Amino acid sequence: MKSSIRHKIAKIFANAKNTDVIVLVNNNSQDPNFAYLAGYTSGVFEYDLLVFTKTRAYHITSQLEYQTALLQKHPEIKIVLRNKEGDHKKLLKRLINGKRVGINGSFLTVESYQAIKKKYTAKKMVDVSEAFAKARLIKDSQEIEEIKGAIRITKWAMLQIQQDFKEGITERQLAAKFDYISSSLGAQKPSFDTIVCFGKNAALPHHMPDETKLKAGDFILIDAGSKVNNYCSDLTRTFLFTKEKNKEMEEVYNTVKEARIRAIHAIKVGATGEEIHKVANDYIESANGGIYKGKFIHALGHSLGIEVHDGVGFWPGASQRLEAGMVITVEPGIYIEGFGGVRIEDDILITKDGAIIL
Amino acid sequence: MKSSIRHKIAKIFANAKNTDVIVLVNNNSQDPNFAYLAGYTSGVFEYDLLVFTKTRAYHITSQLEYQTALLQKHPEIKIVLRNKEGDHKKLLKRLINGKRVGINGSFLTVESYQAIKKKYTAKKMVDVSEAFAKARLIKDSQEIEEIKGAIRITKWAMLQIQQDFKEGITERQLAAKFDYISSSLGAQKPSFDTIVCFGKNAALPHHMPDETKLKAGDFILIDAGSKVNNYCSDLTRTFLFTKEKNKEMEEVYNTVKEARIRAIHAIKVGATGEEIHKVANDYIESANGGIYKGKFIHALGHSLGIEVHDGVGFWPGASQRLEAGMVITVEPGIYIEGFGGVRIEDDILITKDGAIIL
Repeated sequence: MKSSIRHKIAKIFANAKNTDVIVLVNNNSQDPNFAYLAGYTSGVFEYDLLVFTKTRAYHITSQLEYQTALLQKHPEIKIVLRNKEGDHKKLLKRLINGKRVGINGSFLTVESYQAIKKKYTAKKMVDVSEAFAKARLIKDSQEIEEIKGAIRITKWAMLQIQQDFKEGITERQLAAKFDYISSSLGAQKPSFDTIVCFGKNAALPHHMPDETKLKAGDFILIDAGSKVNNYCSDLTRTFLFTKEKNKEMEEVYNTVKEARIRAIHAIKVGATGEEIHKVANDYIESANGGIYKGKFIHALGHSLGIEVHDGVGFWPGASQRLEAGMVITVEPGIYIEGFGGVRIEDDILITKDGAIIL
Repeated sequence: MKSSIRHKIAKIFANAKNTDVIVLVNNNSQDPNFAYLAGYTSGVFEYDLLVFTKTRAYHITSQLEYQTALLQKHPEIKIVLRNKEGDHKKLLKRLINGKRVGINGSFLTVESYQAIKKKYTAKKMVDVSEAFAKARLIKDSQEIEEIKGAIRITKWAMLQIQQDFKEGITERQLAAKFDYISSSLGAQKPSFDTIVCFGKNAALPHHMPDETKLKAGDFILIDAGSKVNNYCSDLTRTFLFTKEKNKEMEEVYNTVKEARIRAIHAIKVGATGEEIHKVANDYIESANGGIYKGKFIHALGHSLGIEVHDGVGFWPGASQRLEAGMVITVEPGIYIEGFGGVRIEDDILITKDGAIIL
């Protein structure tokens, strides 16, 4: 039995004024808001529609996945079969024609948009993507539990994977093993393609695992997440794979570590994302006589939930004020071309008393 | 060094008449045509743009992935850094303003489309998604080699995974192991979420692996694929996990097997997708005294390439004529609620002499 979506739908309509009905279309892949509302944990639902008013929700599906949808027993979603008799078309005409129709412009394709315009006679069509973003930004207690569950799996995997830190293993092998451990621990799937970087590859924030072999003196950077019940974790750990102490590597590591803790301490309700980014960035730029100036080349963090990048975050220009219930990553890093890099990333819940590391 | 994209660009423009420049935007995830053209095997390139005319191609990226893009050394793509000075904006204005601009309407979001319209002054904007689809439909020899490589991995994994067919293993555990084997064999990632169904779950074509345990007398249905150098495989095997012969299960299996071979024999250049679907469907509907009537509930196949669903296919109403160089899956199935199901899927290359199983 899935949890009620009444309060989610109410939140969305509260931010989508002058809208009678909202139409989500799973073109290419699933609209993340489909997972947000329906919470299904089985099924692909390609080309399916989720259509809802303030009081009713319909999932229009094909014969291929009709049973899969029914079996999820969502108490508030009526499953409608797309059939030859065209019952679903009659329903859609009734829901859309003459109505003010909200669509998710940050996901809906131009093609699907044009198809809706052509097939039906909406009074008008409005992009309500912001209403979805706002509704999803503040997590309820159940959502926080789901995210914590996903984080727990990734943290366990970060511990277990260290058994495989052996000279000669390739980035690809280590990434494969990491994903296997996560799945074995209960992850539905990785929440994004697992990043494993050895040595100087760690200077590239989005380097993808390749045939590079691990050798003594390497950084090992792992950036990975799990998806559990549709919610994501996103963590990064950097290890120093050295036989003896390496001062230069340790200094980079400790600088990132200190930037991380300063940023976390600065997080509070009412601050802007820009302010938090600045705390970490200023520290990195001035640390160690300024030798890391210009080496922190990305945002300090992004919010997290149904998607890995779920709305607001910490970056220059981020003016939105932080609110209790937001879940955001904190991930300072230093990247030195030809040498390597360090990133440490945790997922943070903002509460009225400050940040909590989940 | 990446292969030349000149002939791909030429194919696209040949099908996109009256277009001066084409703009791809990686909103949410990567536009598959980005991978088709650039062929990158590392990097995420979120929000990046690939803009090309008949003679030039530009990849506009952020500082975060600038090095990752440069390192791929594509001989014909100029990497442009999105910077404060706005050099990329000047370039885009020069390429877009006053021009006939093609976009991929089957991927581009309404939001990104509106943003381009607002920021630039295109003479007009045209949806050229069909031009991409047409270009990608006929595979060149290198593409076929890539697909074969991906198939090889999935086939090996289908053999190896049988070592884990033991009572008590869960669908989720088997799926995790399958993905691990595939990655270990060199898959970049699964080409879609691996489907593992035990027993009556096999009656649901898109059932997702859950905690169901394997027991004697079960069907084991595995539908899985690998992505290698951006190209996909997609195979299904169904196993009968029985201690003794089970006539009913075998009959279902043999019916699907026979439908498969009849369909493959019927494939020829010039036939329509509908005709091929009908061959398999008619056989299943009439087999065994008609007891499987209405039990084959999906399309017989879909084309395959950069994406798992890559354009045409075999289904009722598919009127496009088959051409040499298309790669399409053949996947008949029978699904019996409460009992289980069988699907067998292979990837087929259409040649002038008929179908070849890859």
